[in-house]
Amino acid sequence: MEYSIDNALEILERTPDTLIHLLSNLSDAWIYSNEGEETWSPYDILGHLIHGEKTDWVTRLEIVLNDGGNKTFHPFDRFAQFEDSKGKTMTQLLDEFKSRRAKNLAHLRSLHISKDQYELKAMHPSLGEVTLKQLMSTWVAHDLGHIAQITRVMAKQYKDQVGPWLEYLSILNR
Amino acid sequence: MEYSIDNALEILERTPDTLIHLLSNLSDAWIYSNEGEETWSPYDILGHLIHGEKTDWVTRLEIVLNDGGNKTFHPFDRFAQFEDSKGKTMTQLLDEFKSRRAKNLAHLRSLHISKDQYELKAMHPSLGEVTLKQLMSTWVAHDLGHIAQITRVMAKQYKDQVGPWLEYLSILNR
Repeated sequence: MEYSIDNALEILERTPDTLIHLLSNLSDAWIYSNEGEETWSPYDILGHLIHGEKTDWVTRLEIVLNDGGNKTFHPFDRFAQFEDSKGKTMTQLLDEFKSRRAKNLAHLRSLHISKDQYELKAMHPSLGEVTLKQLMSTWVAHDLGHIAQITRVMAKQYKDQVGPWLEYLSILNR
Repeated sequence: MEYSIDNALEILERTPDTLIHLLSNLSDAWIYSNEGEETWSPYDILGHLIHGEKTDWVTRLEIVLNDGGNKTFHPFDRFAQFEDSKGKTMTQLLDEFKSRRAKNLAHLRSLHISKDQYELKAMHPSLGEVTLKQLMSTWVAHDLGHIAQITRVMAKQYKDQVGPWLEYLSILNR
């Protein structure tokens, strides 16, 4: 499947409502449990997605489109959510993610990025040269990957409950 | 996390709307693409979830609760959806899943299953003895596992688009 702004937007605009329907008003045990030490709960993952909307995707997009000299991305802080989410409820995180995403997609649409511009390059601090098309595609795959992670983390809370079905449920053995 | 009917229902009742928000009105390429030969697309997975509502979860639940002699489950047909879904749109599948799930959960609630009844046993055709609690927990984990699978299948459609980010996106390497 080739990248296009239309099929990328289809996913990016659906993620907030998908997460709202998956995660709103769930019991704490579903929201705050993780997969073990140094792994993330659905609550942690929501905070990570918000941090991406605040500091990563659109900021990097602007760096690539900017004509200036030093087109190097700042490293992304993968642990910022542990500070940023403090004191917030899951409902607040879901609302914040939805409004930040909507604002970012409105901005993205307003840029009317051309086919040529998608080939523009910048430097990733660890990965080296990347294109705008790769950045946009990664934003999409990152959303889908974290929905998969959230549901895997939740499924694992029942790992000890499914008895012999454990061998059929590959999600519980990842 | 211990199984309880309340925390199981929280997941089971959310799955249809989660999938509706994830999958409604997407382009065909997102819906009909799979992970390669003999793997399933999101469309195939929806058909599989519907077949579970029609023939598996509640039917098995009734077998366990039934006082009769031969408490053995019928094998589940994991390929029925390739015939059953023929000619149906994704929207029709999403609607059918939602209405069948709602009906099944209303029936489940009406049974007022007791704590003791959750320990009742039946024979799985391949796995041997299982309890009603294990069946119910598996229904929940099965939902979450298939949401994870759907988003993984979708993410993989961009595998060739993300460039060097491939190494960071573990979902694309599963």
